[in-house]
Amino acid sequence: HARRLDGIPPTIFSQMSALAVRTGSVNLGQGFPDVDGPPEVVARAVRALEEGANQYAPGIGVPALRQAIARHQQRHYGIELDPDSQVVVTTGCTEAVAAALLGLVDPGDEVVVLEPYYDSYVAMIQMAGGVRRPVTLRAPDFRLDADELRAAVTARTRFVLLNSPHNPTGSVLRRDELQAVADVAIEHDLVVITDEVYEHLVFDDHEHVPLATLPGMAERTLTLSSAGKSYSFTGWKVGWATGPADLVGAVLAAKQWLTFTSGSPLQPAVALALDEHPDFPTELAADLQQRRDLLCEGLAAAGLTVQVPEGTYFATTDVRDLGWDDGLAFCQALPERAGVVAIPAQVFYDDREAGRHLVRWAFCKQPEVIEDGIRRLAAAD
Amino acid sequence: HARRLDGIPPTIFSQMSALAVRTGSVNLGQGFPDVDGPPEVVARAVRALEEGANQYAPGIGVPALRQAIARHQQRHYGIELDPDSQVVVTTGCTEAVAAALLGLVDPGDEVVVLEPYYDSYVAMIQMAGGVRRPVTLRAPDFRLDADELRAAVTARTRFVLLNSPHNPTGSVLRRDELQAVADVAIEHDLVVITDEVYEHLVFDDHEHVPLATLPGMAERTLTLSSAGKSYSFTGWKVGWATGPADLVGAVLAAKQWLTFTSGSPLQPAVALALDEHPDFPTELAADLQQRRDLLCEGLAAAGLTVQVPEGTYFATTDVRDLGWDDGLAFCQALPERAGVVAIPAQVFYDDREAGRHLVRWAFCKQPEVIEDGIRRLAAAD
Ligand SMILES: CSCCC(=O)C(=O)O
Ligand SMILES: CSCCC(=O)C(=O)O
Repeated sequence: HARRLDGIPPTIFSQMSALAVRTGSVNLGQGFPDVDGPPEVVARAVRALEEGANQYAPGIGVPALRQAIARHQQRHYGIELDPDSQVVVTTGCTEAVAAALLGLVDPGDEVVVLEPYYDSYVAMIQMAGGVRRPVTLRAPDFRLDADELRAAVTARTRFVLLNSPHNPTGSVLRRDELQAVADVAIEHDLVVITDEVYEHLVFDDHEHVPLATLPGMAERTLTLSSAGKSYSFTGWKVGWATGPADLVGAVLAAKQWLTFTSGSPLQPAVALALDEHPDFPTELAADLQQRRDLLCEGLAAAGLTVQVPEGTYFATTDVRDLGWDDGLAFCQALPERAGVVAIPAQVFYDDREAGRHLVRWAFCKQPEVIEDGIRRLAAAD
Repeated sequence: HARRLDGIPPTIFSQMSALAVRTGSVNLGQGFPDVDGPPEVVARAVRALEEGANQYAPGIGVPALRQAIARHQQRHYGIELDPDSQVVVTTGCTEAVAAALLGLVDPGDEVVVLEPYYDSYVAMIQMAGGVRRPVTLRAPDFRLDADELRAAVTARTRFVLLNSPHNPTGSVLRRDELQAVADVAIEHDLVVITDEVYEHLVFDDHEHVPLATLPGMAERTLTLSSAGKSYSFTGWKVGWATGPADLVGAVLAAKQWLTFTSGSPLQPAVALALDEHPDFPTELAADLQQRRDLLCEGLAAAGLTVQVPEGTYFATTDVRDLGWDDGLAFCQALPERAGVVAIPAQVFYDDREAGRHLVRWAFCKQPEVIEDGIRRLAAAD
């Protein structure tokens, strides 16, 4: 392989989902729901297939979907976008991340990123020749420290890449934390790439604040999201990037060579989801919150202290509570021991020690699956 | 945008398809059919949607599709592949090209490519930091000259990237031309990346010979293809790369960060297409051949000398026959003059002079659309 891939292992999600299939384990690893989104949205995709939306969509995305994305940003956040220059459809948020980094980052550019990282960030920053500058969200509460953020910025910093709600920790950045990001970005003239795929999946009275809504940020923020998490169609891989025309243009400039386009029959269905099922994601969040509680209570009953997540699909535990020192060893043994798969969070850290004992559990599963997983865990030797 | 995109314009296909929509022109530009593939294949995708194949497929592709791809290579070409290590599913052939180049090419590596190029090759070689070395297929007959091929190889050459059947010229490389490629690759220890998306779309008694079937080539050839062209579902973007496990592994290593996966509900449908409709592509080719003839006769009647293509969706003409010196000017004026869109082939050349007067016309359209296009062309001032 080429040197740009040196030292980058296969994504942990592929590894662990393959392990779950191989061992017949309950998969609380990779984040995907086991119940699909609205049947009307499936029906719209069926109609698109049958009515012949089967040839190339425009590279930028079908107009109806770009307009629906713009309306979504307007409706939920009051953000005004021109659907013809400020919205581009991508093959899931993964491609939006890849195209943003390949489209914007030059070799040597420094990118400030929240650690623990979502793993594609590390890989794609490296593939773009960028240098990552971690700002660590520290256990147990995983908050963003404004001083650590400021300390990560150097004269070579050009980007902040962040995600809130934050995967893997489940933290939802608060207004003061986001304001610290905005202050740093404005002071140092940085572009912020913000992955907000869990934008609707927040719990209790936590609020998702899009970074682009902070004063002075709209003109320097590229926002990424997708229908996968908001509408429970992770396999459709319909995502998007929105923001200033020059940043969106850079995403499109890279993306046209990565896939050109994708999902022609799925794009009209996602447009319908956004336009006609605007409340689905919030209802999903309410439902997910119950499953979060079910998982967290079960993990607690099994002897684990849980940092109850504010958003996302995921809860994090410290396996030292169970007498394990190493989360990777714990997760490698777990399928055999208990028939459960979870994710060792240490793979999301540069400094493996900082995450050594952390394990991430997904609760985007039906209650009986979560209960089964918990039961298996409790019964393990 | 990042410097890796410097000087790379938006793909001509997006530009010209947008122009066709805007001007209401007959679109003989971008290559996509106006009749979809087998209804049974659409029905299988519908079933997959309704039965819930809506969450992440494995990054490498669903097993049924990888097995069907391996069987396809066996059935048509006698190529034996392990579906678990020698096949990876991609978001169309475009992603296979992108992931192959990002996964294999290091900065400074030279890549020998057939000119005129398919445009994503130029962009992705540049994005990977590679250096392209053109071997020009010269008008009017667009054959590969073995001496020019040998002359393009230097000490820094590591790859040959070729496509046969060749887009945009419509040439199908003959066994002696492919043998010249194989000889050079073996002598200089090169890896060959071969884009064979038009593998089934060959006419008359021309034969598609996969490069991987030549002696000594299986172990150094990465073969790319897709369901888009063979089964007339260009919007599904389900493609694949096959070959030695190390080369396929490099594609997967890059691709997992570009999109992770895509088209979960479409992958089982493509598996069914390959397994249960093995003759569809050949029947499509026979039908396309008639439409090729219709287009070529019409272009000839309009005063153009046509190089009758041996394969693909495309025929090339020399617009000097109509008194135009510049194919780009011709194509820019054509929507206004005639209500027709075609592609200026000069954008596929480093040496624009060599392709200055060439224009590419697509015939993957219904006969009445081709006739309408021809009529409009003939009626133009
Ligand atoms: C693209 S696979 C990963 C799914 C996910 O977001 C996660 O499990 O963190
Ligand atoms: C991916 S858009 C281009 C379609 C095509 O192969 C062509 O027109 O050459």
